[in-house]
Formats: sequence, structure tokens, C-alpha cells
Amino acid sequence: MNLTKIIESVPNISEARRDDVLAEILKEIHGIPDTRILDVKPDLDHNRTVISLAGSSEGLKTQLLKLYEVCLKKIDLRQHQGEHPRAGAVDVAPLIPIKNVTMEECVRLAKDIGSEVAQRFEIPVYLYEFAASTEARRDLANIRKGEFEGFMEKILKPEWAPDFGPAQIHPSFGVTVIGARMPLIAFNVNLGTADIQIANKIAKAVRHSSGGLRFVKAMGVMLQERNIVQVSMNLTDYKKTPVYRAVEMVRREAARYGVNVVGSELVGLIPAEAIYDTADYYLQMESFTPSQILENKLMEE
Amino acid sequence: MNLTKIIESVPNISEARRDDVLAEILKEIHGIPDTRILDVKPDLDHNRTVISLAGSSEGLKTQLLKLYEVCLKKIDLRQHQGEHPRAGAVDVAPLIPIKNVTMEECVRLAKDIGSEVAQRFEIPVYLYEFAASTEARRDLANIRKGEFEGFMEKILKPEWAPDFGPAQIHPSFGVTVIGARMPLIAFNVNLGTADIQIANKIAKAVRHSSGGLRFVKAMGVMLQERNIVQVSMNLTDYKKTPVYRAVEMVRREAARYGVNVVGSELVGLIPAEAIYDTADYYLQMESFTPSQILENKLMEE
Repeated sequence: MNLTKIIESVPNISEARRDDVLAEILKEIHGIPDTRILDVKPDLDHNRTVISLAGSSEGLKTQLLKLYEVCLKKIDLRQHQGEHPRAGAVDVAPLIPIKNVTMEECVRLAKDIGSEVAQRFEIPVYLYEFAASTEARRDLANIRKGEFEGFMEKILKPEWAPDFGPAQIHPSFGVTVIGARMPLIAFNVNLGTADIQIANKIAKAVRHSSGGLRFVKAMGVMLQERNIVQVSMNLTDYKKTPVYRAVEMVRREAARYGVNVVGSELVGLIPAEAIYDTADYYLQMESFTPSQILENKLMEE
Repeated sequence: MNLTKIIESVPNISEARRDDVLAEILKEIHGIPDTRILDVKPDLDHNRTVISLAGSSEGLKTQLLKLYEVCLKKIDLRQHQGEHPRAGAVDVAPLIPIKNVTMEECVRLAKDIGSEVAQRFEIPVYLYEFAASTEARRDLANIRKGEFEGFMEKILKPEWAPDFGPAQIHPSFGVTVIGARMPLIAFNVNLGTADIQIANKIAKAVRHSSGGLRFVKAMGVMLQERNIVQVSMNLTDYKKTPVYRAVEMVRREAARYGVNVVGSELVGLIPAEAIYDTADYYLQMESFTPSQILENKLMEE
């Protein structure tokens, strides 16, 4: 699939344990023109499946509406149990700009899909992150607080009236959260020490919540098998806090303890731009453009 | 154009001054299925044009045969003058593996096209670099020595019998050289000094010919306008001598003179792999694969 414009969506649905239901859901959203299912990660403890989709704006809209339709039929939150907080059968569906797409286009698409979901299925819709209508709705966790069980009351409060749809939860589906956000890059840096304190201190130094970089979440992790520690990071906006900057900060902080970076690990996917930016940075290039990459040049009109 | 396998070819033709002839040549090789003309660089002093093509194996074969056909019609080396050494109307045509293609496939294609050119047009063909039949024919300059004017005699020597075609030059076309080589990356590193001696010394240290890295050609260049010097490099096998290693060696050598790298410049195109390798190296990734790049994942079957 070679699209000029690419949007990603990573809907989280409240089902992972019933194989047959999951298979039927995937069958329904499969094969829609200009879309692809990139990855499906069911988590049994959470009873929640993370689905990665990508495609054109029109394709994704069709695919997500189909997902809402089939999940409405197949998932009843009154029967649902799992460790992860959730407020709806399709709990959350972010839209993510990947290639030649602006965040504004993703916000518009989020609102377009949200309005359609509300109208067609009578499901209350909340908009979050870049699509949020108020500051309090920017944060997903904040919207979801109370979960399915608490939303019956929460939704009646004026400040929690949904952005689209009725001010009462759908009896079996609950509510849903749709929005636009940057792609998330999960990047772990391994250190040449078994001292978890050092990993924790570095994590604390680089993460936003304790004074570090604006778009970094981080924690120290022990890798028992290798007897080393790791700074495990989520980079929530690689354009504003690039991978290389976060890694160099970890390296710098580690040096303070006489510890070296011994390796690193990208978990899942990364936009090409984040890789280009990294090469550009370290090679100190003055005027590099992605169209200088032969494969990209070949794909241009 | 989204091909699974990509080969590049950079034929050099002995014409740059006659616009109408050049236009007609380009018209003839344009629009061939599964090929693209990436770039056309005429050099008036050399009276020579460098054409960058890319495509599938079959597409490129059709395109190059068409190029030989039209150049045979339009270019007469008996009338040709220019500063650059040349022995044929299509002087040289390398085949270059870019994506999911081995060097062996490019060698096979070079021989296939060479044999066809000899048979169809009665042009003597020499194979060079990875396609060379003897060590002496590996080097293009070595084959071309004597040029068009000298080849009338050179071709009669048993050691210079062509790999394909008659042992006499084509009266108007001359001979041609076809082969397989790695993509060439032209990469310049700018230094925070105006002392050309320093650039020259660093160039000498990093280049193969004077003891440096196996696949680096380099020279010092003065950038008059910016009043700084540059180490200008050609990297002739980025898999064996990667960009980052050459750049880090320049950096290291520059440090010996107390000079910093202030920037760098990629001239022309680069294969995506060379960029991935760079990010991989500096981020010290343990198990990165190009299919972790979202755009690549999307293009897989």
C-alpha cells in the first residue's frame, strides 16, 4: 500500500479473552480499501486488545465506524472484567498523523468520526488530546475516571456532558473517547549496571513529571535475565522531544554515575521521520531532505 | 512507483551540448513501465550527461537498450569533444542494487544487457567492477585508458578483447562499459577552520589510497564564500565503510588539530539503508529492523 497521506489509529477495545469474538471483529474491519491492520495485541489480564490501523482519511473513517458497529453488537460492558480502566466497548480511538498529514486534519477527522458514531449508534463521545474541547478533557485518564460503572452519574454533570451524542451512557457499550495525538515511540535504553537506583534516578531526571523533557515518560526497569537495568521511555511527541535528545540526556546522566549505555531497544513502530531526524542530528547535516533518500524519490509523483 | 525490488542505473552519455539531441534521447527512455528517470545532469565542459534511472530488472533492461539504440543513432564520437575521458557514445552504464536486490543479480543483469547490446548493435562491450571478467577490468579508468581515439588499436590486443561483441570498435559509437557496483554516496564534512592544510591532511588520513578506509575517496576543498574548509568524500561501498564511520573518523582527526565539525552535506541521493544504519549506530540499537518503520510496514505485502 503506497499512500501519499497516512494516518494511524490505535483503537483499544474491551475484549481479549473471547477468541471467536475477536476474530469476528477483525474479520469485519479487514480488507477495507486504503487501510491496513498493522498489529493486534490482545492482553488477557486487561481483557483489552490494542489494534493498530493505518490508512487514508476516508479509509480509516470507514474502518473505525465498522469497528464501532461490530463492537456494539459483540461487547457488553455489563459483563466485562479486566484490570485496565475502561469506559466503553471501544474504549479509546486516537488518530495519529504519520505522513503528509497535519494534526489539524486528524482533529477534524476525530470530530467527523465522533459525530457520526454518536448519531449512528447513540453512543456518547468525548474528544481528547489535540481534539479536546476543554483543558480538563485533554488527558484521557481524566475523562475515563469513574469508568463504565461510574459514568452513569458522571455524564449527568454539566462539565462532563459529552462532546457528541446523548447525555446518558449506552447501556451495553458505555461511552467512547476519540481524539488526535502524536505517535508514541517506546524506546528503552540499557545501562551497563545492575543498580536499579541508577536507572530510577536517570528516569526521574529525563521525564517530564519530575522536571525533565516535556514529552518523555520514563521509569527504571530491571532486566533480570541480563542482570542490567534499563531506562524505559515513552516519547509522546518526537517532533518536539526527539529520540536522540532523550537518548543523549540518558547518556549524559548515566556518565555522572560512571555508567555507559550498552544498547537500546525500539519497541513496536516508529515514523520514518524520527529515524531521519536522528541521522540528520548526529551527522550534523545542513540541508538534508527525505527526498534525497532514493526510495522516497522513487515514490514521488 | 512502489517496487519490491529496485535497481538503479547511472548511464553516462557523451552528449550535453546539443539540447535537441538530449531532449530526444530523454523522450525515448521516458515512460517505460516500472522505471523512472530520477535525475539528469548535463555537463557542458565535459560534453557528457549523467542520467540516473531506477526501476525493476526488466524495466531497466528495456530502458537501457532503448538508450543504446537512440544514442547510436544520435551521437557520433568522431565529432565529439569534451574534457572528460570517454570511449563510447554511452560511455558507461553501471547497475546498482538498491532494495531487495543482490549484487549477483546486478552482475547477471549487466551481462544480460551487455550481451544484448553487442548482439543487437554490434558494439563491443566491456564488463567492469563486480561484473569484471579479469582483475584488470575491475577499474573503469583502466578499461577506458586510450579513449575512443586509442581503442581502434587497444581492442586488437588479446588482453583487451571485449567481453561481448566484435573485436573492433563501432565506427561512430566506439565501445561501451557495463557493470555492477555499489551505490556511491557523496558526503562532505565542513570544518570550523579556513586552513586547507588541515582538510587535506584529514582527507589523506581517511581515504583508501593513502592508508585510510577501504571504500573512501577524499580530498580537501576550500569553501571560499563561507571561509571554511571541507573534507569532500565519495563513499563507494556504504555497507562495508558506513557513512557514520567515515564521518566519525573525520571528526576524530579534526579534533587532533583542535578543529570541530561544523556541518555536513549529502550531495545527491542516498539509499535508505545508509540512513537507517546511521540512526542504528548512534542510538546503539540492539535489534532494529527497517520493518519497524511505520511507512515500510505499510508497504509490505
